[in-house]
Amino acid sequence: MEFVADCRLRMATDLFIHGWDPVVLAALVTGPHRRRVLRATIGGISDKALTEALHRLHDNGLIERRSYAEWPPRVDYALTLLGRTFTDGPMRALAEWINRYGDELFEAQERADPASS
Amino acid sequence: MEFVADCRLRMATDLFIHGWDPVVLAALVTGPHRRRVLRATIGGISDKALTEALHRLHDNGLIERRSYAEWPPRVDYALTLLGRTFTDGPMRALAEWINRYGDELFEAQERADPASS
Repeated sequence: MEFVADCRLRMATDLFIHGWDPVVLAALVTGPHRRRVLRATIGGISDKALTEALHRLHDNGLIERRSYAEWPPRVDYALTLLGRTFTDGPMRALAEWINRYGDELFEAQERADPASS
Repeated sequence: MEFVADCRLRMATDLFIHGWDPVVLAALVTGPHRRRVLRATIGGISDKALTEALHRLHDNGLIERRSYAEWPPRVDYALTLLGRTFTDGPMRALAEWINRYGDELFEAQERADPASS
């Protein structure tokens, strides 16, 4: 695994630097959603944080904004094909890992900083 | 994939929030290393940033610090079993994804912000 010299890995891990971005992607796994539904599904995300996450994910080519010529106007957000490869691959692997090893991770964090619980 | 309501996913994505942490993990995939070797292998990481990354990875139970009763004293760092599951699972999936789709990601980023290149 030729990780270290490969700055492309950093390009990939950067997709997780903004904590809401993977959460928004996860919310789109079930299908396209309107902004209002996204906020309700995710819970705890401010309007500003959602706007920023949608912009970043769009600029990374992981989601698309779809605008319908209807009245009243309608806009929704959907995973792109690239976004789908990201949720099906690395994000699924991460979800599987945390399901299996989350308790161990939590216990290590508790040991390191018992006061934080 | 029951992602969204699951705050455990956030616990997992948080492992990527500090950009150097996965890079340090990647450097340990080949085996235990002393601090000096880690700095040289990674390149571009300050002593302070390396210290902080090693502390966080240790507190998350992903690496261990091993101290040898020798003269001169010797210390090295190694993946724990938990750390190994993380590099073999989610990090490998991420590395494979970026190898395969990195060009598409880069092109999307270029389209979004041509001035940054």
